[in-house]
Amino acid sequence: MTNRADSVAEADEADDHFHDECGVFGIFGRADAASFTTLGLHALQHRGQEAAGIVSFDGTQFHVERHVGLIGDNFTKPSVLARLPGDRSIGHTRYATTGGAGLRNVQPLFAELDGGGLAIAHNGNITNALTVQRNLQRKGAIFSSTSDTETILHLVATSEEKDLLARFCDAVGQLEGAFSLVALSSKKMIGCRDTLGIRPLVLGDLDGSWILASETCALDIMGARHVRDVEPGEVIVITEKGIESHFPWGEQKPRFCIFEYVYFSRPDSRVEGRNVYEVRKRIGMELAREAPVGADIVVPVPDSGVPAAVGFAQGAGLPFELGIIRNHYVGRTFIQPTDSIRHMGVKLKHNANPSVLEGRSVVLVDDSIVRGTTSQKIVQMVRDAGAREVHMRIASPPTMSSCYYGVDTPETSKLLASRMSVAEMAQFIRVDSLEFLTIDGLYRAVGEAGRDHDAPRFCDACFTGAYPTRLLDHEGPDNVRKLSLLANPNA
Amino acid sequence: MTNRADSVAEADEADDHFHDECGVFGIFGRADAASFTTLGLHALQHRGQEAAGIVSFDGTQFHVERHVGLIGDNFTKPSVLARLPGDRSIGHTRYATTGGAGLRNVQPLFAELDGGGLAIAHNGNITNALTVQRNLQRKGAIFSSTSDTETILHLVATSEEKDLLARFCDAVGQLEGAFSLVALSSKKMIGCRDTLGIRPLVLGDLDGSWILASETCALDIMGARHVRDVEPGEVIVITEKGIESHFPWGEQKPRFCIFEYVYFSRPDSRVEGRNVYEVRKRIGMELAREAPVGADIVVPVPDSGVPAAVGFAQGAGLPFELGIIRNHYVGRTFIQPTDSIRHMGVKLKHNANPSVLEGRSVVLVDDSIVRGTTSQKIVQMVRDAGAREVHMRIASPPTMSSCYYGVDTPETSKLLASRMSVAEMAQFIRVDSLEFLTIDGLYRAVGEAGRDHDAPRFCDACFTGAYPTRLLDHEGPDNVRKLSLLANPNA
Amino acid sequence: MTNRADSVAEADEADDHFHDECGVFGIFGRADAASFTTLGLHALQHRGQEAAGIVSFDGTQFHVERHVGLIGDNFTKPSVLARLPGDRSIGHTRYATTGGAGLRNVQPLFAELDGGGLAIAHNGNITNALTVQRNLQRKGAIFSSTSDTETILHLVATSEEKDLLARFCDAVGQLEGAFSLVALSSKKMIGCRDTLGIRPLVLGDLDGSWILASETCALDIMGARHVRDVEPGEVIVITEKGIESHFPWGEQKPRFCIFEYVYFSRPDSRVEGRNVYEVRKRIGMELAREAPVGADIVVPVPDSGVPAAVGFAQGAGLPFELGIIRNHYVGRTFIQPTDSIRHMGVKLKHNANPSVLEGRSVVLVDDSIVRGTTSQKIVQMVRDAGAREVHMRIASPPTMSSCYYGVDTPETSKLLASRMSVAEMAQFIRVDSLEFLTIDGLYRAVGEAGRDHDAPRFCDACFTGAYPTRLLDHEGPDNVRKLSLLANPNA
Amino acid sequence: MTNRADSVAEADEADDHFHDECGVFGIFGRADAASFTTLGLHALQHRGQEAAGIVSFDGTQFHVERHVGLIGDNFTKPSVLARLPGDRSIGHTRYATTGGAGLRNVQPLFAELDGGGLAIAHNGNITNALTVQRNLQRKGAIFSSTSDTETILHLVATSEEKDLLARFCDAVGQLEGAFSLVALSSKKMIGCRDTLGIRPLVLGDLDGSWILASETCALDIMGARHVRDVEPGEVIVITEKGIESHFPWGEQKPRFCIFEYVYFSRPDSRVEGRNVYEVRKRIGMELAREAPVGADIVVPVPDSGVPAAVGFAQGAGLPFELGIIRNHYVGRTFIQPTDSIRHMGVKLKHNANPSVLEGRSVVLVDDSIVRGTTSQKIVQMVRDAGAREVHMRIASPPTMSSCYYGVDTPETSKLLASRMSVAEMAQFIRVDSLEFLTIDGLYRAVGEAGRDHDAPRFCDACFTGAYPTRLLDHEGPDNVRKLSLLANPNA
Repeated sequence: MTNRADSVAEADEADDHFHDECGVFGIFGRADAASFTTLGLHALQHRGQEAAGIVSFDGTQFHVERHVGLIGDNFTKPSVLARLPGDRSIGHTRYATTGGAGLRNVQPLFAELDGGGLAIAHNGNITNALTVQRNLQRKGAIFSSTSDTETILHLVATSEEKDLLARFCDAVGQLEGAFSLVALSSKKMIGCRDTLGIRPLVLGDLDGSWILASETCALDIMGARHVRDVEPGEVIVITEKGIESHFPWGEQKPRFCIFEYVYFSRPDSRVEGRNVYEVRKRIGMELAREAPVGADIVVPVPDSGVPAAVGFAQGAGLPFELGIIRNHYVGRTFIQPTDSIRHMGVKLKHNANPSVLEGRSVVLVDDSIVRGTTSQKIVQMVRDAGAREVHMRIASPPTMSSCYYGVDTPETSKLLASRMSVAEMAQFIRVDSLEFLTIDGLYRAVGEAGRDHDAPRFCDACFTGAYPTRLLDHEGPDNVRKLSLLANPNA
Repeated sequence: MTNRADSVAEADEADDHFHDECGVFGIFGRADAASFTTLGLHALQHRGQEAAGIVSFDGTQFHVERHVGLIGDNFTKPSVLARLPGDRSIGHTRYATTGGAGLRNVQPLFAELDGGGLAIAHNGNITNALTVQRNLQRKGAIFSSTSDTETILHLVATSEEKDLLARFCDAVGQLEGAFSLVALSSKKMIGCRDTLGIRPLVLGDLDGSWILASETCALDIMGARHVRDVEPGEVIVITEKGIESHFPWGEQKPRFCIFEYVYFSRPDSRVEGRNVYEVRKRIGMELAREAPVGADIVVPVPDSGVPAAVGFAQGAGLPFELGIIRNHYVGRTFIQPTDSIRHMGVKLKHNANPSVLEGRSVVLVDDSIVRGTTSQKIVQMVRDAGAREVHMRIASPPTMSSCYYGVDTPETSKLLASRMSVAEMAQFIRVDSLEFLTIDGLYRAVGEAGRDHDAPRFCDACFTGAYPTRLLDHEGPDNVRKLSLLANPNA
Repeated sequence: MTNRADSVAEADEADDHFHDECGVFGIFGRADAASFTTLGLHALQHRGQEAAGIVSFDGTQFHVERHVGLIGDNFTKPSVLARLPGDRSIGHTRYATTGGAGLRNVQPLFAELDGGGLAIAHNGNITNALTVQRNLQRKGAIFSSTSDTETILHLVATSEEKDLLARFCDAVGQLEGAFSLVALSSKKMIGCRDTLGIRPLVLGDLDGSWILASETCALDIMGARHVRDVEPGEVIVITEKGIESHFPWGEQKPRFCIFEYVYFSRPDSRVEGRNVYEVRKRIGMELAREAPVGADIVVPVPDSGVPAAVGFAQGAGLPFELGIIRNHYVGRTFIQPTDSIRHMGVKLKHNANPSVLEGRSVVLVDDSIVRGTTSQKIVQMVRDAGAREVHMRIASPPTMSSCYYGVDTPETSKLLASRMSVAEMAQFIRVDSLEFLTIDGLYRAVGEAGRDHDAPRFCDACFTGAYPTRLLDHEGPDNVRKLSLLANPNA
Repeated sequence: MTNRADSVAEADEADDHFHDECGVFGIFGRADAASFTTLGLHALQHRGQEAAGIVSFDGTQFHVERHVGLIGDNFTKPSVLARLPGDRSIGHTRYATTGGAGLRNVQPLFAELDGGGLAIAHNGNITNALTVQRNLQRKGAIFSSTSDTETILHLVATSEEKDLLARFCDAVGQLEGAFSLVALSSKKMIGCRDTLGIRPLVLGDLDGSWILASETCALDIMGARHVRDVEPGEVIVITEKGIESHFPWGEQKPRFCIFEYVYFSRPDSRVEGRNVYEVRKRIGMELAREAPVGADIVVPVPDSGVPAAVGFAQGAGLPFELGIIRNHYVGRTFIQPTDSIRHMGVKLKHNANPSVLEGRSVVLVDDSIVRGTTSQKIVQMVRDAGAREVHMRIASPPTMSSCYYGVDTPETSKLLASRMSVAEMAQFIRVDSLEFLTIDGLYRAVGEAGRDHDAPRFCDACFTGAYPTRLLDHEGPDNVRKLSLLANPNA
């Protein structure tokens, strides 16, 4: 366990990004439903690589499989799929997050309620979960995981509404924060988004079978049609009779997470009406316009910086060159072998190509800077490869505030931008110049005129600190502390 | 999973016995408490070989480890013990039983209650668990295991009494059936037995540290002193200040399980004031007196028939001989390899020794007959080895009724004695004569004058059908069915 | 690895016995041959629990499976047996021995020779293996294991004889030491024993299929007939045409290992014409006659002391009692958890029963004393349980010399009997009296008049130091040292 | 095993490329040498992902670890590295190839020779290995693997030369084919290349420690200096005294594998004096010149087509766009779950981005076409995404002949180009136009004037059928067949 923790720490350091926590998928009314869920989760693997789970219902019983590791390594075996019979299924892939690692927290979670079984898969984070848990606990609820998804199950279980849908809406209505949920009962598949629509969820159709998925790339993999996005505050109910739409919690101005465009979503996905790759290219173009630089070549930090670099190069009329090569074989388990090597600053994941860089003035394009340590190493590597000048261009504004909506971010104090000016940051990562995209530039890249500071169109709290919800658990009194005295709840 | 189920089926067939479901152990106030729990559970391994769990408390946090398999294979590794720090610890070893196999049902179960954490390890079976679960579920409780132990945790969690001990007593007071429990909170270790005292529980002392254990052999292994048995209906509370005794549920005439003497307990244990080996030898002597036979030698079916055979041989003045050799390397995972071999009736576990048996008239002593299939095979094997006559003597009365008190028994209809007379059974297993110990003989062997039919001293329901409690779940209306629509709750 | 080594050390200490290294089995001309080999090896599991291998030949190709662990845990899975098709198969089960642990040394070993494939399984030890290996190496042979069995394969490979049988006989003729071999080529199954016949090998018949096995218990398990023992110096060749017998190396007075009767063989086996259980009982009777004692009860150290204790009790007219209970769940992986516990002298494997022992004068019967540490602990345990007097009777003479014939024994200097008189040993293990069977008594128990000191009928070197062969490697010049600079050849 | 084979088949189909078989690495005279070997092999992971091994020498003993799977998953654990002490070490990473999968064939192979231990790691393929093996076998050699590397060990072992270096040169001088070897004895690290220098090998220096590696990227990862390439036919000997160079087999015109530039080597490596990325970009430019097309955008098939596409776009003055997204989470273990899904043609690895492609005329750039099945799927996917026209441009000539020099290629008959004209291929993969780079164009991209047909500068047999060596095993008489009747030699 210690080693794994270390390795994750390693990997986190090496991979200095915000990370979306989860991808969800569900399909209703298709033979071998779990196989399709496997495909869908594979396409959503970028949203969480640590563990995954699939629930299916075969008309009589629910079946569950949960595994630590990649979809492709665990869920494609015929023996596993044979244990997931049925024509409806939901699944979840996760990054380590609230609740700690461990199979017990791997979703979907399942509970047998008075009216039958219910499985829930959750992308997001409930900002009043601890408060709600504490209340439930006072009434005698016991928790077997530390996942806030279990809180939702308890709320459905204790709701005094009559039927499952009413209880579900009652329960979810008590939640604050960001959530895109997919749930499966013996009769229904339910999908919903919080009223702000912070996290994505789309509706698809595969030859008459309905699909719910975090991103459209999970539809594309199986040739399914993208019907539309689930709307903020919408509850979609799918049964054998068809599909219904409800808005039980009223409507609000939506605040979709703008960082999905910057980094989380896959470039080939279409989210909220925009293609992610196109947005990233426009970000690069905006950046070239806002922060031009007379340099020889544009080099992306692969892979996440590539689309913006393509846009920058096109915008600036400079050659796009692969001056840094990424080694895709670095998994999460790669540990820097020994202390002596650790201190050498070895290039496990990226290598600079001197033939491209030597003697050149380079525009280096990356999507964001979190702690800055990786940027520091990459810049040094580019300089060691002979670059004459290094101009860093970041495809988003400085990330100054932690995210509480289902994203793995460091504490605010560890964000480089929260404690340094841009000039200090440039000095810290040792570049000849450093520029970030402005927040208005980012809004322009997604097609807005700019940020409406009174009513911003997106959740951009990580850049602006303007959280669109209360943060009850985070800001609450001391006595609303984390549940669980159990050191290793997954054991 | 299928294979494992098959292998268990195999093993069950090969090992045609009733099986006690569990052993429990707890120690309070001793550094490295979990190491002692490991030893105690190892000594109790005969009470359950499928899986085990240990919980420890280190003053701040609870720690849990659960593993499928033997104690010695899983809990003796330094890395595992290092994850179980603290000076108080409880543990559980289990045979597959109510709730199905799987890590999720492995005890001790833990819940975080409003007042702090509570872990419970349970030996026995709650006969109104489904009824209680259904009630809890109607109030919104959700279950993450199918174990009836989780029911106890829910009852404690929802009790409206004030302090933990009162809530525990309130909760347990709602249970019917047989249970010996060991529980651990941050301040207390609690042990209790049902008011009939059906399952055993003893109190020990290791240089000032209190111990609770299913049998005294778990004290012997570490040189601890046997203080006394926990009494039926007693709740023992151990804290840093010392030990208290309570009888919150009133008193009843005790009905200890007499089958513990016949088969469940280890021969070196002292249960309810009697040494098990001595009782078994006296059973053999009673049997020699009740059902004498003029034969050449007395041969036990090893290992469980050995003490009674020693007694029979001494009682009858006949030579005791090891005419059947047992292969101890047959674990639960041994599968009869192929169909062709399966039908050959191979001798995976026992082999007869022709040098001992050839031409002899043999008294074969076994502890009980359940389905009769194993007896049939063993008799055939003894005949094939050249025995002239085979006289079977069984060290207990015919087992005619299933047990609902924490023992793995087949349905009543599969018990050979429930559908055949002794004469028919003799014909079925093909012996020259077959005699069972009488119920009065069994009572004499444990030191009684005989069975008081109006107020029997023991629970002997498997022999007499006289269940000492209601069997609410078993006899209840159809709608009190098994919970859980989840096919593989452990997945 | 370190832990495993420790655990083995633990286990060795706890299990203070000489250990036979291997069991071998082969069957020719039976569908699903590997399934029968699985059964045979399971019956021979007492001859080696560390690892096992099976080779089969399907008419075209050889198939091999090797696994660390018990037969029942590894070779009974349908998937494993499906990988071992064919109607002829040989197998091997091993105790860790010459060559170190590791899969690479697990037998049968296979080589593709010029004339086709050859697999060999070996029970015994070649006393000139290093000398022969060194010679082979000088000629350019390279070794991929450290097993002396590979030496045999090299000798067959480099033999200049024409056909396989001639090459096999030429190769084996160069070996010194003890060996019972079973070999499989595409056409033949070959079995042979060294000219002294030190290790056992028997011939069986299962409905027309020939079997070779270390002991008859491997025939009994599948209902096969014991045809006869393979004779010392005999080479048996089994083909589709039938069976041939050769004696290519001349004949010698046989010297079967007498310790097979004392401990190695299973009590139900018939070796060299004698039933092992009967010999052990006669040993007990001899011991009662040679070293009588006025005591209350006879108690075996289980399991190995049981038959001799039965004999002693019958011979002495004293009651046989199970005063020590053995916990069969102690596998080889049981590690004494922590130092504090290690020093407590916990009773992982044996527990004394005070009800039997208290106030009694006890004759304690064990098969042998090796290092004496286990005896010391057991005697202390018996005393702690209240025994008034403890008289130890050992069912063999003092073991004073190491074995070089395929038995795991400590160095001579670690054998208690090599450095203490019987009186000193009695004091060391703290008994009121200690007596060993005499060497003549042992010969009488196996049916001889006594030991013929000029021409002893058995190999009894461990008791007498009279090795029946040269010990070339052991006594050789310094430069005949152990091969392999490779630290972990199995990796 | 079957599943794994299936999955490999899947993966091979999905990844329709030639595959280099191996990467080798060695370092001499550096504390924690194995840690550096781990880093080096990680950088060479693209040359083989199936299994890897590392040997170290600690001054007294050799240590070996071999594992199936990625370097990062197996060799970075402190426990593994602790088992590889010493200041010199060699390692190997492999793709499944000659000899089948399985740990027994994982290199480096080790043998203890008369003069001490020798470990060898091999990149390439010996074209007369079976012939040599057969000869060795006739002299009595036995083989424990099916790897041709073991043949080299046997030749060294049986060489009659005096010292290790002479024996090594004698042995290797008997080999035909392609090989870059790194060997380690107790005193020396040896590196050599065949006289044609078909496979690469470079010499590096890390602060005074010598390194041998397949590519320079294995030097870059640890900041080592690229000293020079090992020359064709050169034997480099590294000892504590320094470095020596020998050319024992005479010199020949070199014939380096030109496909290393097309696909095998990492783009950031410098091989034979040229940077791979730069060559690939020049290939793209040549292709734009040779086969121009009036299209809207240039889209690479990622990742291997990216550098050539960058070159094509620059050469053609067209926009470079990421119209296809690659999912990097497809490991080798991904199985297409069920038949129904298999036939759907799901997009496990690549997805087309309609926003980029819709309505566009697209130049699709890939490095090569092997079977054509993947190209077919990708073209269809691009069309489904709305591309108006698809013009395929391949960054190498048609691959018409199998490779016998250490590359995993299908049989010649399965190569699309061996049975179709370019026009037929265009029809088969359903493109509007299809053009391959000419062989002269490829030579120009690497800096030659064109191919000298009388004395080609490179091995280009896969394009031209002009094999630079005899292919003795391949073309030999029937009786030089594959060794080993053993079906699963690794078991």
